[in-house]
Amino acid sequence: MLASRLYSPTLRELPADAVVVSHQYMLKAGMMRKIGNGIYSFLPLAWRSIQKVEKIIREEINKTGAQEIMMPIVQPAELWQKTGRWDVFGPEMFKLKDRNDREYCLGPTHEELVTSLIQMDTTSYKQLPVSVYQIQNKYRDEKRPRFGLMRSREFIMKDGYTFDADEEGLDKQYKLMYDAYTRIFTRCGLTFRPVIADSGAIGGSGSHEFEVLADSGEADIVYCENCDFAANIEAVDPLTVKCDIHNDKEKELVETPGQHTIEMVCDFLHAPVAQSVKAVVYNVDGLVVLAMVRGDHEVNETKIQHIYNAINVDMASDEDLKKVGLTAGYISPIGLKRTKDFDILVDPTVMEMQDACCGANEKDKHYIHVNPARDFTDVRVETIRQIQEGDVCPHCGGKIVRCRGIEVGQVFKLGTKYSEALHATFLDNQGKSHPFVMGCYGIGVTRTVAASIEQNHDDDGIIWPVAIAPYEAVIVPANNKSEEVMAAARKLYEDMEDSRDEVVLDDRNERAGIKFKDADLIGYPVRVTIGKKWQQSGCVEIKIRRSGEVVEVPLEEAKDKVLEILKTLHANNQ
Amino acid sequence: MLASRLYSPTLRELPADAVVVSHQYMLKAGMMRKIGNGIYSFLPLAWRSIQKVEKIIREEINKTGAQEIMMPIVQPAELWQKTGRWDVFGPEMFKLKDRNDREYCLGPTHEELVTSLIQMDTTSYKQLPVSVYQIQNKYRDEKRPRFGLMRSREFIMKDGYTFDADEEGLDKQYKLMYDAYTRIFTRCGLTFRPVIADSGAIGGSGSHEFEVLADSGEADIVYCENCDFAANIEAVDPLTVKCDIHNDKEKELVETPGQHTIEMVCDFLHAPVAQSVKAVVYNVDGLVVLAMVRGDHEVNETKIQHIYNAINVDMASDEDLKKVGLTAGYISPIGLKRTKDFDILVDPTVMEMQDACCGANEKDKHYIHVNPARDFTDVRVETIRQIQEGDVCPHCGGKIVRCRGIEVGQVFKLGTKYSEALHATFLDNQGKSHPFVMGCYGIGVTRTVAASIEQNHDDDGIIWPVAIAPYEAVIVPANNKSEEVMAAARKLYEDMEDSRDEVVLDDRNERAGIKFKDADLIGYPVRVTIGKKWQQSGCVEIKIRRSGEVVEVPLEEAKDKVLEILKTLHANNQ
Repeated sequence: MLASRLYSPTLRELPADAVVVSHQYMLKAGMMRKIGNGIYSFLPLAWRSIQKVEKIIREEINKTGAQEIMMPIVQPAELWQKTGRWDVFGPEMFKLKDRNDREYCLGPTHEELVTSLIQMDTTSYKQLPVSVYQIQNKYRDEKRPRFGLMRSREFIMKDGYTFDADEEGLDKQYKLMYDAYTRIFTRCGLTFRPVIADSGAIGGSGSHEFEVLADSGEADIVYCENCDFAANIEAVDPLTVKCDIHNDKEKELVETPGQHTIEMVCDFLHAPVAQSVKAVVYNVDGLVVLAMVRGDHEVNETKIQHIYNAINVDMASDEDLKKVGLTAGYISPIGLKRTKDFDILVDPTVMEMQDACCGANEKDKHYIHVNPARDFTDVRVETIRQIQEGDVCPHCGGKIVRCRGIEVGQVFKLGTKYSEALHATFLDNQGKSHPFVMGCYGIGVTRTVAASIEQNHDDDGIIWPVAIAPYEAVIVPANNKSEEVMAAARKLYEDMEDSRDEVVLDDRNERAGIKFKDADLIGYPVRVTIGKKWQQSGCVEIKIRRSGEVVEVPLEEAKDKVLEILKTLHANNQ
Repeated sequence: MLASRLYSPTLRELPADAVVVSHQYMLKAGMMRKIGNGIYSFLPLAWRSIQKVEKIIREEINKTGAQEIMMPIVQPAELWQKTGRWDVFGPEMFKLKDRNDREYCLGPTHEELVTSLIQMDTTSYKQLPVSVYQIQNKYRDEKRPRFGLMRSREFIMKDGYTFDADEEGLDKQYKLMYDAYTRIFTRCGLTFRPVIADSGAIGGSGSHEFEVLADSGEADIVYCENCDFAANIEAVDPLTVKCDIHNDKEKELVETPGQHTIEMVCDFLHAPVAQSVKAVVYNVDGLVVLAMVRGDHEVNETKIQHIYNAINVDMASDEDLKKVGLTAGYISPIGLKRTKDFDILVDPTVMEMQDACCGANEKDKHYIHVNPARDFTDVRVETIRQIQEGDVCPHCGGKIVRCRGIEVGQVFKLGTKYSEALHATFLDNQGKSHPFVMGCYGIGVTRTVAASIEQNHDDDGIIWPVAIAPYEAVIVPANNKSEEVMAAARKLYEDMEDSRDEVVLDDRNERAGIKFKDADLIGYPVRVTIGKKWQQSGCVEIKIRRSGEVVEVPLEEAKDKVLEILKTLHANNQ
């Protein structure tokens, strides 16, 4: 490809809403343009990277025995109404009507559709397992689309689905997919971790997320320094922390005028934060829930959602508090009773505490010398705290480390949630009917490209892993005015283009500095410079974007050397 | 691929709405399933064919210098409002609102979007030409979705767009695309014709359709037996037919009681139909238009639309007729005046007629001895008749033949229609601003697959051109019970699968008859049978689906022979 013809218009000014690196660089390098809020056009460079990711996915997923299909984007409402997800998705689902007023949505995912599709023709255990996948646009009308491709409203996903006769079959498929996902992200050159995940709104009995490790990620993940354990924090029940304090004193009401935060109270009472009890109040589908954790802990809201099998978990309003008799800033379960409108959850670590301080449900007053196991008289004990850095690994006792990740893939054991709701069944060898045991497996294709940039960049631009770079190499004639230089560059380009459609010749009538800048920004893994040095010594300069390493070889050897470097990069998934 | 694992569930019963062959066979062969009205899921066999068509398109379009991009399916309404097409498309466009009540459509095409996209970064003549394309789902909310993939509401299109500085540049791009399209449909193994097309609602100054010749096609096309001329009938102005009759008599009112059709009147008056004048009345965006053609001719409604630059051309209602004083069944322009609500169009061939019969605008009465040039006193003369079989070629005087086609591609010279409406301009070398001169180029990908079946099938099933067959060959062990046969088949399969992922082994536990039937239905170009004959003589049978030709070769030679046959089929685009 000639750079003079490549449609990759670079930008000088960045739109203010581009706050993460992948968004900034993809706009700056002319890889994509914003069309609407969370809606983008992909220009040739981005599209090549996306297609490379898709090709890797196809190759690896095909190896699992899965077959590629293509389901519609526009899906009839009825299917979603049957599983109840028409309402669960709520405003996040793009909905529309056709000319005959029939309702449809733009598929945010395809569990409903694929279940009804496979059900049409699959009736016997003999036909199982069935494993299908597609790569397609998906739609979510996000409340706050942001971060470019990291959270857009139209995005490309690979979604796969398996249908088995039993859990054992599902386990086998799940393992196949887990391994394929590991190969896919490895081949994409990403540093990632599969982590135990919450199965969330999609339902099911087991799940892993594949997280690309990057500070800009929106996922909080934890892993053990010692063993293999890694999880999304919302999916972990941390161990209960014992308390070595012993307290025989009765609880005592003290004045704490104006001290309405944990930090204020602890400061005022000269108590460590870990000796205080924190109250957070939620509105869980209408039920007011008081959640108590240790002062230095956080509530795992996903766990709250699971406990009540809830659709919405929101912070409680002042009105909610008033309704159930809670005093903001001084909240306490002491003396309160659970009712049908009000529940109290206490984390077991709180129940272990002794000599704690805690609100008194009266303005400007707290209790001290509280022993929750003795003084909290009507509460439900559930592990509701988040695991945190420094916690003990629930598996091996090692130390937990926390970091950020970008979720690029997820595998789910769905079980029979969708097949039961849609009456999708098969007959076993006794003629008995059973719902399919399903799994589903997603990869955010466009998000993978963005995550790769979040993880692989420097101040000059993108550092593509070679397998998903839009082009693998660029040839830069550093002196456009020299016919000799241009001819040499053109010859090398033609020699190389024959072997692979992966080389760009920067034939633009620009200064060498601008060409180098653009090459770094676009992130070609290998850059070949033909300039003065070549005119003097016959040597061209080959620079590896990732390592910065430079080698000089005679022009005649340049092609072989570049191919050798590319081969090494490919072999090392770099 | 093992047939036992291939997800291609064949059907015995066909849904009643499958009336064309491609729809029937694609359902029957387990290639696709209906999800909603005009909305389908593609199963693995169809998806493979579609991907092969896409690959051919990419290869040939890339050769033109065009670059692949991907624009959003969900498009902001504002762009469409600027060009006025938000209303022009009307109910054919799927419209939706997001959670903030902003309006969008599902792209039926992308002229608006691509123009605004290229405008963002292309400002100088130095950057031109720009040529981009995408392959993507498109959406049209058809009034009557039908014929499976021939007219569905969600379908896959390749759409390309070029931006040039002038008409000369556009002409060059147009030629490149025309040639690429010719190569694409040739490689797809289709018998097709590029025909002159009407540029229709999309606007522009020149257009060709690529029509796959098939009786089930919805397009009426004409071509000359003698020269290269070929056109969609709606795009041709036929020559005026001279009349060798001479009539000096004055027009005369005669009684024609109850004779309200052309055939009745001619029969009643013993006049040839070609001596009668036919009236058709339209409502053209509210204007009542009386169109007069010779009795044996038809009106070209597309021409009517162009004459008035109209959005809607509907048949006039009884009320329309009454409003302008027309008597149904006896309509005539004689004695009528054109007004602002009423226009009269007469085809020039009618104006050549002498001694014609014609309505009298009175119930049960007609005129005879009419000379329109003398007796039609207030009319507008425009060529409004359709060209028809047996007409004279407007280019060479040869004979016109009419046939049916399936439109699979269209190339348009758009000119500046969209760039002007969207103020998409560039600066020339004098610093003067001009709108881009645009072209657009579409291929119906899914429709191409269906058209291929319409053109290539027999009573047993599909006859795929090898280039777009889901798989190129099937190996049928004709006797599942023989371990020897199965082992031989499996070995041949393994040998062949290594060389290409294009072979299916029918390892299903079915009778040979069922396997043969399915092989013919699915339409594998080459079938290899290993059965009794092989056990007796060592020879396997290789059958070519298209020709029916059978060759027998020793098993050891089967792989080479099959590859040789496939190579020949590929080379001949069969």
